[in-house]
Amino acid sequence: MCGKILQLDAGNIKRVRYKDSGVDIDRADAIKDKIAKLIPKTSYVIEGIGPFAAITKLPECDVIVSACDGVGTKLKVAYEARKFEGVGVDVVAMCANDVLAMGGEPFIFLDYIALDKLDEELITRVIEGIAKGCEDAGCALVGGETAQMPSFYTDAFELVGFCIGTAKKENLPKPDGIKPGDIVVGLPSSGIHSNGFSLIREAILTKFRLDYILPELNKPLGEVLLEPTRIYVKTVGKIVGKIGYPKVSAHITGGGIPGNLARVIPEGLKATIKAVFRNPIFDFIKKEAKVDRDEMFRIFNMGVGFMLVYPEEKASDIEGIDEAKIVGVINEGGPKVVID
Amino acid sequence: MCGKILQLDAGNIKRVRYKDSGVDIDRADAIKDKIAKLIPKTSYVIEGIGPFAAITKLPECDVIVSACDGVGTKLKVAYEARKFEGVGVDVVAMCANDVLAMGGEPFIFLDYIALDKLDEELITRVIEGIAKGCEDAGCALVGGETAQMPSFYTDAFELVGFCIGTAKKENLPKPDGIKPGDIVVGLPSSGIHSNGFSLIREAILTKFRLDYILPELNKPLGEVLLEPTRIYVKTVGKIVGKIGYPKVSAHITGGGIPGNLARVIPEGLKATIKAVFRNPIFDFIKKEAKVDRDEMFRIFNMGVGFMLVYPEEKASDIEGIDEAKIVGVINEGGPKVVID
Repeated sequence: MCGKILQLDAGNIKRVRYKDSGVDIDRADAIKDKIAKLIPKTSYVIEGIGPFAAITKLPECDVIVSACDGVGTKLKVAYEARKFEGVGVDVVAMCANDVLAMGGEPFIFLDYIALDKLDEELITRVIEGIAKGCEDAGCALVGGETAQMPSFYTDAFELVGFCIGTAKKENLPKPDGIKPGDIVVGLPSSGIHSNGFSLIREAILTKFRLDYILPELNKPLGEVLLEPTRIYVKTVGKIVGKIGYPKVSAHITGGGIPGNLARVIPEGLKATIKAVFRNPIFDFIKKEAKVDRDEMFRIFNMGVGFMLVYPEEKASDIEGIDEAKIVGVINEGGPKVVID
Repeated sequence: MCGKILQLDAGNIKRVRYKDSGVDIDRADAIKDKIAKLIPKTSYVIEGIGPFAAITKLPECDVIVSACDGVGTKLKVAYEARKFEGVGVDVVAMCANDVLAMGGEPFIFLDYIALDKLDEELITRVIEGIAKGCEDAGCALVGGETAQMPSFYTDAFELVGFCIGTAKKENLPKPDGIKPGDIVVGLPSSGIHSNGFSLIREAILTKFRLDYILPELNKPLGEVLLEPTRIYVKTVGKIVGKIGYPKVSAHITGGGIPGNLARVIPEGLKATIKAVFRNPIFDFIKKEAKVDRDEMFRIFNMGVGFMLVYPEEKASDIEGIDEAKIVGVINEGGPKVVID
């Protein structure tokens, strides 16, 4: 891994004098040692010390696919609950699933954590989550930055990720190849994922505490909300291995199915969505936040975290691969996405 | 460029209902159009629409060099002064100079901007700065994320960058090749760059306003502090073109010359620094913040933003390339960096 992991910005120390900041620097070194043990060494990383940046050898590929994303205000909920590992997984998922949606295979990941002052528990748990997420996504955590920004973050911290994947040109999305009759395959989300939290904080967490037990799920609300975003690399890998690359894919994040699937549907065609995966958390939010169905679909993933479009003849082969399900069909007309 | 530039996270909208958030979404589209005009199209980017991630073709290379960094609490000063273009340059500089220090040639850049609510002026100016920085660094802005995070950022915003560069294996740093007698070449900084702002905010901006005219510089303090970080890609390119790759390089950020140059000096050797580039801003801070010389060197770049180590015989060729100057020499002994 790169030496910048927990390379603290010494200019941003809490105290004016270095001699006063000794404790923080000592703690930073201790945390750095702990973190080093969390990160599996990989053969990609050819420059172990990497004092300023990570050096990695690329596998053979035609193009690289790069994405950057954060976790949004889910961080506030994680901070309040002091549960940090999940958002570490989330930040990898948000980036790796985006790379995957463009036909890329996640390869390396870098993280940025910013916080008011050193919080060993927070940093260690976040990095544990990132390491777990990277393992699931099949990519290597090669670097990152932990910035101490005094009086910048109060009861909050920032977490941003950056993922580079590799792809062969022939496996890139082909929206022009989509035809009426094509099927839309959905993969289940693990819950809210990392979007819609501003609504949740405003309309749900003002009424319910994080330890409120959700009736139908028999779990605390906080646990359900903080369930990490699912990483689809392995499932999509299985599908591609069995029936080849999809025509297009969509990672369902902010904007929901209409907002995200529409990005890869060409003019003149529409995807009619006939089914989703039911998750009681969405029913709870719909009822308690008094949000109508269309709005729910524009804000949340509604149980579908990732979608792929395939020719109709693949239909019989696809169901049964993990929890993949045919959730819709392509027709002529518009708008690009219709929730049936 | 990638479609994710100003792709707003619709789950993080300010209002609970979509119908209430129309203004923000309309404004986001308007800003997006403006931004698109700021970003030069480049031949790297083979997937114009890039709905989820950027797809780019790499030039021939052995390895990729990746770095991620932020601007630290300089953002607070920029926010207070409402001068945003400079920090856009800064975020590119922080990442691109790190890539450069590892022998990489900056190739693509992605940005992450997070803010409380849409601020067209802020976003547009930051992206203008990023576009300018990318031009200077010779890399393409291929994507990014603008996250609206209500009640997360108050009188502040976050700005993070990711840069990928390419390198030939033979041009990577060779710290083992450093020998006594080697020369340390310094390149001048443009001022404070992006480190030490927590001290400045605590010890200077509590005594002086941003419009205070600095005696020796005859410029407002705010302008001097917000001077963008210099990007060294072109100058280092000239030096490398004339005398070949250095043994090692260092980007002088938080930790100053001792903290950063030491990262690439092997055990048993020390770099003795005999000269810097004088900039009156450091004298002003030293005096007004009552910070001693050693501390100043550990917090600020003290006029030297980038350093390169070359064999002694290159000495006569190097001075005269831009403002490059021999600032030190390698000797046996320790500690790794001594400010003479």
